[in-house]
Amino acid sequence: MEKNELLYEGKAKRIYATDETGVLWVEYKDSATAFNGVKKSEITGKGILNNEISSLIFANLQEMGIESHFIRKISETEQLVKQVSIIPLEVVTRNVIAGSLAKRLGIEEGTPLKKPVVEFYYKNDDLGDPLITEDHIGILEIASLEEVNLLRNKALKINEVLSDLFLQLGIRLVDFKLEFGKDANGEILLADEISPDTCRLWDVNTNEKLDKDVFRRDLGDLTTVYTEILNRLKGETAHV
Amino acid sequence: MEKNELLYEGKAKRIYATDETGVLWVEYKDSATAFNGVKKSEITGKGILNNEISSLIFANLQEMGIESHFIRKISETEQLVKQVSIIPLEVVTRNVIAGSLAKRLGIEEGTPLKKPVVEFYYKNDDLGDPLITEDHIGILEIASLEEVNLLRNKALKINEVLSDLFLQLGIRLVDFKLEFGKDANGEILLADEISPDTCRLWDVNTNEKLDKDVFRRDLGDLTTVYTEILNRLKGETAHV
Ligand SMILES: Nc1ncnc2c1ncn2[C@@H]1O[C@H](COP(=O)(O)OP(=O)(O)OP(=O)(O)O)[C@@H](O)[C@H]1O
Ligand SMILES: Nc1ncnc2c1ncn2[C@@H]1O[C@H](COP(=O)(O)OP(=O)(O)OP(=O)(O)O)[C@@H](O)[C@H]1O
Ligand SMILES: [Mg+2]
Ligand SMILES: [Mg+2]
Repeated sequence: MEKNELLYEGKAKRIYATDETGVLWVEYKDSATAFNGVKKSEITGKGILNNEISSLIFANLQEMGIESHFIRKISETEQLVKQVSIIPLEVVTRNVIAGSLAKRLGIEEGTPLKKPVVEFYYKNDDLGDPLITEDHIGILEIASLEEVNLLRNKALKINEVLSDLFLQLGIRLVDFKLEFGKDANGEILLADEISPDTCRLWDVNTNEKLDKDVFRRDLGDLTTVYTEILNRLKGETAHV
Repeated sequence: MEKNELLYEGKAKRIYATDETGVLWVEYKDSATAFNGVKKSEITGKGILNNEISSLIFANLQEMGIESHFIRKISETEQLVKQVSIIPLEVVTRNVIAGSLAKRLGIEEGTPLKKPVVEFYYKNDDLGDPLITEDHIGILEIASLEEVNLLRNKALKINEVLSDLFLQLGIRLVDFKLEFGKDANGEILLADEISPDTCRLWDVNTNEKLDKDVFRRDLGDLTTVYTEILNRLKGETAHV
């Protein structure tokens, strides 16, 4: 496999073409950003951590029957993935109220939800990734109602698997953001990354935050908590 | 009917008890406010205009088989209504993209929608009346899924009737906000007001804005355009 031209440089990853049609080469960067890029830092080692964490999680999902774009990890900071056409939605699933939902509803962060909820945000940096409804998705012609239901059901299924996985590691999966895309056959496939950048992960005993909120809110050292997540995952998924 | 104690003073209306159980005395004020009260003015005559407009519209809806809290107009600025327990949702129906939806989706104001959409905002001044989803309504325990569907269907039905009414007056009903409440029997009833404060109304020929946007955006004289709406309504509903 050969790495070809840079297709896209985002805040967290660089995406390259390869010599194989339909296969992308993803490089995880050391950048940490928050609040739509307003707050940013370079954090040495973050790329290595997220590449490894995301690879372990995608491999774990695969074992549990959940397909994704992930093909394989090819270096400390790189992985190969299947190319998809990203659906411009951030699909957020929540088990516990935190972050923007706590603010929106005026309910204290940490309040557990009776059942998980799925929200859709319009993936559009210029607009600040606003919350949108199913009707808005229809107006934007981003996805059909059928596809929205499919995304919701996929997110809820992934939530079950990931919640179980993290619970075994003594971690509460508070919420997480997924991106999906369509492959060459028009099939909807889980894509992007699953990492402490895209999940809220709280220690079940201490409620310590083990995710990007330590960076967003200056609560501690990002490398330390991401390493903690990686180590717990490695213990759990050592057989992968 | 006797007017008793002031129960609530809002931005646009004062609500008084009466000597009859279940009946409220509503006084329309001369205040104009926008952006959650940040912008405000006293505009002499606004109370008279909105009381009359809202009364004519409720009477028209009644004729078309749509019940509301409206009992009767009792003076230039006052009307009697059935007391309800307000459901803390602003139910917004849209036929054309405007205002916050144009900003949220990045679509030009004035773009017609293929079909009307209904949105729910959490009626909570401290939180700035945020957009919420049906799942959020469930979390807040504001209404059951069944009730949400009922609200949506009522809003869409009212939209049909009001769109027709305004079209006969040469006015395009761009969007509008409704409030509903539960009466003593638990029945859901249309409440609050329907006026140029709560609707976007554009002249079909000139696209001139004949609603509170003239105040919000300093486009002209509020009294002039509200009087225009009233005069057109009086022409149309002279038989009421
Ligand atoms: N399998 C895939 N095929 C194509 N694009 C992908 C795939 N997986 C992820 N992407 C996209 O690649 C980019 C990853 O870069 P990164 O996460 O750094 O972007 P970002 O800074 O979050 O910006 P964006 O707002 O564009 O997501 C994202 O735009 C993501 O949607
Ligand atoms: N039939 C009714 N029974 C009880 N309350 C009503 C009824 N109709 C309207 N209301 C409530 O009376 C108040 C009307 O006052 P006004 O419209 O001035 O309030 P406001 O400034 O918009 O503030 P709020 O945010 O409370 O609506 C609103 O709270 C409205 O929900
Ligand atoms: Mg990203
Ligand atoms: Mg009001």
